[in-house]
Amino acid sequence: MIEMNDEGGTTVVVRSTDKPPRPSWQTWLIGRPLPTADAPHQTIGKAVGMAVFASDALSSTAYATQEIMVILAVAGTAAFGYVFPISLAIVILLAVVAISYEQTIHAYPGGGGAYIVARDNLGDLPAETAGAALLTDYILTVAVSVSSGVAQITSAFPILYPWRVLIAVGLVGFIMLINLRGVKESGAFFAAPTYFFIGMMFLTVGVGIFRFLTGTLGTVTNPPALEAVEMLGTITPFLILHAFSSGTAALTGIEAISNGITAFKEPRSRNAGITLIWMAVILSTLFLGISFLVRPIQAVPSELETIISQLARTVYSPVSPLYLGVIAATAVILVLAANTSFADFPRLSALLAADGFLPRQLSFRGSRLVYSRGIISLSALASLLIIIFKASVNALIPLYAIGVFLSFTLSQGGMALRWRKIGRLHPGQEIKERGSTLRFESNWTLKMVINGFGAVCTFVVMMVFAVTKFKDGAFVVLIIIPLLVAFFSLIHRHYLNLASALSLDYYGEPQRVGRHRVILPFSGVHRGSLAALHYAQALSDDVTAVYVSIDPEEMEKVRRKWEKWGNGIRLVVLESPYRLFLEPLLEYIEEVAAARQPGEIITIVVPQFVPAENAANLLHMRTADYLRKALLSKPGIMVTNVPYQVE
Amino acid sequence: MIEMNDEGGTTVVVRSTDKPPRPSWQTWLIGRPLPTADAPHQTIGKAVGMAVFASDALSSTAYATQEIMVILAVAGTAAFGYVFPISLAIVILLAVVAISYEQTIHAYPGGGGAYIVARDNLGDLPAETAGAALLTDYILTVAVSVSSGVAQITSAFPILYPWRVLIAVGLVGFIMLINLRGVKESGAFFAAPTYFFIGMMFLTVGVGIFRFLTGTLGTVTNPPALEAVEMLGTITPFLILHAFSSGTAALTGIEAISNGITAFKEPRSRNAGITLIWMAVILSTLFLGISFLVRPIQAVPSELETIISQLARTVYSPVSPLYLGVIAATAVILVLAANTSFADFPRLSALLAADGFLPRQLSFRGSRLVYSRGIISLSALASLLIIIFKASVNALIPLYAIGVFLSFTLSQGGMALRWRKIGRLHPGQEIKERGSTLRFESNWTLKMVINGFGAVCTFVVMMVFAVTKFKDGAFVVLIIIPLLVAFFSLIHRHYLNLASALSLDYYGEPQRVGRHRVILPFSGVHRGSLAALHYAQALSDDVTAVYVSIDPEEMEKVRRKWEKWGNGIRLVVLESPYRLFLEPLLEYIEEVAAARQPGEIITIVVPQFVPAENAANLLHMRTADYLRKALLSKPGIMVTNVPYQVE
Repeated sequence: MIEMNDEGGTTVVVRSTDKPPRPSWQTWLIGRPLPTADAPHQTIGKAVGMAVFASDALSSTAYATQEIMVILAVAGTAAFGYVFPISLAIVILLAVVAISYEQTIHAYPGGGGAYIVARDNLGDLPAETAGAALLTDYILTVAVSVSSGVAQITSAFPILYPWRVLIAVGLVGFIMLINLRGVKESGAFFAAPTYFFIGMMFLTVGVGIFRFLTGTLGTVTNPPALEAVEMLGTITPFLILHAFSSGTAALTGIEAISNGITAFKEPRSRNAGITLIWMAVILSTLFLGISFLVRPIQAVPSELETIISQLARTVYSPVSPLYLGVIAATAVILVLAANTSFADFPRLSALLAADGFLPRQLSFRGSRLVYSRGIISLSALASLLIIIFKASVNALIPLYAIGVFLSFTLSQGGMALRWRKIGRLHPGQEIKERGSTLRFESNWTLKMVINGFGAVCTFVVMMVFAVTKFKDGAFVVLIIIPLLVAFFSLIHRHYLNLASALSLDYYGEPQRVGRHRVILPFSGVHRGSLAALHYAQALSDDVTAVYVSIDPEEMEKVRRKWEKWGNGIRLVVLESPYRLFLEPLLEYIEEVAAARQPGEIITIVVPQFVPAENAANLLHMRTADYLRKALLSKPGIMVTNVPYQVE
Repeated sequence: MIEMNDEGGTTVVVRSTDKPPRPSWQTWLIGRPLPTADAPHQTIGKAVGMAVFASDALSSTAYATQEIMVILAVAGTAAFGYVFPISLAIVILLAVVAISYEQTIHAYPGGGGAYIVARDNLGDLPAETAGAALLTDYILTVAVSVSSGVAQITSAFPILYPWRVLIAVGLVGFIMLINLRGVKESGAFFAAPTYFFIGMMFLTVGVGIFRFLTGTLGTVTNPPALEAVEMLGTITPFLILHAFSSGTAALTGIEAISNGITAFKEPRSRNAGITLIWMAVILSTLFLGISFLVRPIQAVPSELETIISQLARTVYSPVSPLYLGVIAATAVILVLAANTSFADFPRLSALLAADGFLPRQLSFRGSRLVYSRGIISLSALASLLIIIFKASVNALIPLYAIGVFLSFTLSQGGMALRWRKIGRLHPGQEIKERGSTLRFESNWTLKMVINGFGAVCTFVVMMVFAVTKFKDGAFVVLIIIPLLVAFFSLIHRHYLNLASALSLDYYGEPQRVGRHRVILPFSGVHRGSLAALHYAQALSDDVTAVYVSIDPEEMEKVRRKWEKWGNGIRLVVLESPYRLFLEPLLEYIEEVAAARQPGEIITIVVPQFVPAENAANLLHMRTADYLRKALLSKPGIMVTNVPYQVE
């Protein structure tokens, strides 16, 4: 299809093709390329929305209780009495955060992740901080969820324990492939397991509580040994706070829906908000249920068998197929929970890239319309973490959640500030600020208090987390986040500088090209260099051939050959007593460049063999490449290589 | 200095400079660059010649006896009675080889290494084989000599044993630096240690034999334990041959003088020949002396203490400063013996490169007039061997010497053939064949017999070596040498093909350049792309700007901007529904190229940002580089990038 336009004197030809690219190994792996027009406009209802966005949040019920117990274990099994009260405190915090986010969803129907809220209401630096915190946490979510999923599998099949790192990295690769295929397909893929998990967990907790009430609930048979490194013996307030911090891992993933509001059916804010509330309710119920049951069954936290496994086999004792159902559901939901990060990380990094905080390439969609570069980066970084931490959930947890709470704080704080600004408007007034619209709302005070309270709570939790887990590994995150922020700023400055350097404001008409000098360096008179000479003469009448002489005999030969074949073109011989090749040439070119008249441009035409096999390049001096690199920084000097194909 | 010539209508300007290159970190490391005119024309006498060329050969006395004993050890200490007879046989072989080489020196006054002799008299394949064998052995010489030197040091200072690999690699690096500085200086550097070693060894052997004769020679106190892996108990003919093979390591380095004849004062063949004979005599005397003394002192071969160390401390017992003198002399000579390879390897690889069997770059002299690339390659390969074999002489020895004997055989065989040809000439006749001159000599029959006998002897030894040491590691060399020969042939074929493809024989006058089309791909209208447009218009009136559109909105903006800034140049918009950038562009270029008229050429002008920092390149799509790579193999399409310097 060719469409001819003739506007303003310039001919514009638009050519379009429907021909898909040739199939490659990528086609086989992730499916045929999709045209941009196929971008999904399809929206999802509340039920599917829950499946897509809740797997991360819900899956944390699989390890949150255990992480509380691991900390309390140093004070002996008696300390396990605190598991339920601590869980209750966490659920209250969860309620605050959920209500707070519900407000954000209504205020940002176009998607209100912490980065956007911070950017619109707090400015660049808080936005970069939120971005850094979230990206760090998305990577950790993948590492923690997949490691925990593998821990469930190795609880049921201890024989697989030595291969846990390999299995975990393999699973990350698998999720990566699914995501490279595209979001639409991955949504459908994840719906069934999420509901299977919810069902199995409610059944387990329900049966457990029923048997507890009827007095038929036993205790864990053959429990794993308690592996506390050093026994403290006494329960300190610090220990309680420490356990509380670990348990807050249950809140991770709660923000996922706020990033994906646009995926919901209209009225989307309402649907997304309802889904968020439902998710919070289900999560709280299951978490409290599990935390309640661990005490009567006398479960013991261990790397070798998870609490979920101990709970399921006690509740369904004597061993029933339902036990394996729970293990399977938990393992699958944990592995798939990583998928939430696979949806969020690439989207957030594309957003950061579009705003110039990350390399632009991250904002380009791949052949399947997803941000492939982001997906691949996430997989690589998460796999690295899994390998470094040997797929141990206990080792990864201290790094985890601190970023989430930092982003919670910034998001809620930004919202609170937004409500205050809205409160200053007249009724019905609307103003635009930094790309978002502020509209007067009457109940802004209440909303400001709710978001402000959320911000204070999450900030306090973050501080508790940072202090109690500092030496366990939280310090790593406290170093990485500022480094990331500095990195973002550096990139941002580069793009801003570039944009101003390239801007056409104050762009004067450039000087007309006067003289066009062509310099032709060559190393011998042969078909390749004559092809370059031929091209050089087509460019300009002002051609100078340059030969660097290392050996006087060789030079004499070249000179005689040039007199025969050189078309009368002037030859400059540069004697190089130190046997250097590039340096005398560069010196000569710079000398010529220095003597330029205004408007004069210089083109260096370099003959280059192109051997049939790539490896043969090692047998030649790659003069063209070196010259280009050396001259790249000199204005007004262009380097062209004239390839000469051999064979 | 500018010299103007005007021959045959072509202006030729010759520019010369005496200005040395700017100092760099290399200057600091290896000295200021030397001009070609400084190439050493200085020659050396017999005494210095011995120091420069004999260190490799003489140093083998430090391990040859021990290597015989290591093999015999499996048959118990009684087998050590065979050490002296075997050594005697090796000395006879050495005499044959030395006499044989003395003839070569006179026949090739310009330098007659095995490669040259084989090339001139036997043809390409034997020459490549000799080259491969010698290069392999030079690398092994460095690895074995340095490892053995380090073994002497760790005999005296066992505390250094765990660091032997590091010490050995460090020493290789040190010798590399000395050699990168240049041959002249390294010659002077090595004279003193060589004579110190000769003196110390004669003293040790002399005192040892004196004490033996006077009955005052004791036995080794606290000898190391015998470390035979499996005790055989009986002495088999195979074992004797095996021990003989190991001992032939004493012959390595004997060929060094034949490569370096030109370094000697006139009459150079005579001087070189006399030096060779003296070297053989000194070597034989020391080797026999050591092999004789090991039995009365009851020395035991061991990785922990060398035979030389055991001998010296017994001869000078009670411990005297002379013991440390022997150790120091031996360690130094061994480490410096590697220097002979550092002289020969780069020279031989330059020779092979000049003949087109190795990459041309190896034949270029570096800033200090030495073949720096060869020196660096040798160091890298030898260090690799030392690391792989953990600096163990016993492990390296089976790989060693087989290449030397192969090159001996080819060299002597080639000489024998040469004498036969000379015998067919008339008295006084002279013919030229393959670059060397054959002149009638009357006593050709005797000379032919001597060289022929040498060839047969060394061939037999090589076969014995290959068979007895096959499974110890000799098979590695028997695989590597044919691989190297295949590699040489491949490179040779490439250069021959290239030469014929570039040849100006049958070169017709090329078609005159007709149309010159310029295609300007750009990704946005800004100062960078307008600079490229400006250049494109200077090249030709036939310019087409090409924009790949991924997003219709963005495209509309670019189109409007182009109408304002595009100088009326035709714009082609390629819609890319699959969000590919390079592919639609390449497709378009290939389409234009396919529709070319005869003589039409196409230049692709690509705007390219040049950020101030290199790392910032990661923030951009490097379109120019990708396009150039993709189009390199298409004839008649040139790619120019117009750099736009930012900041």
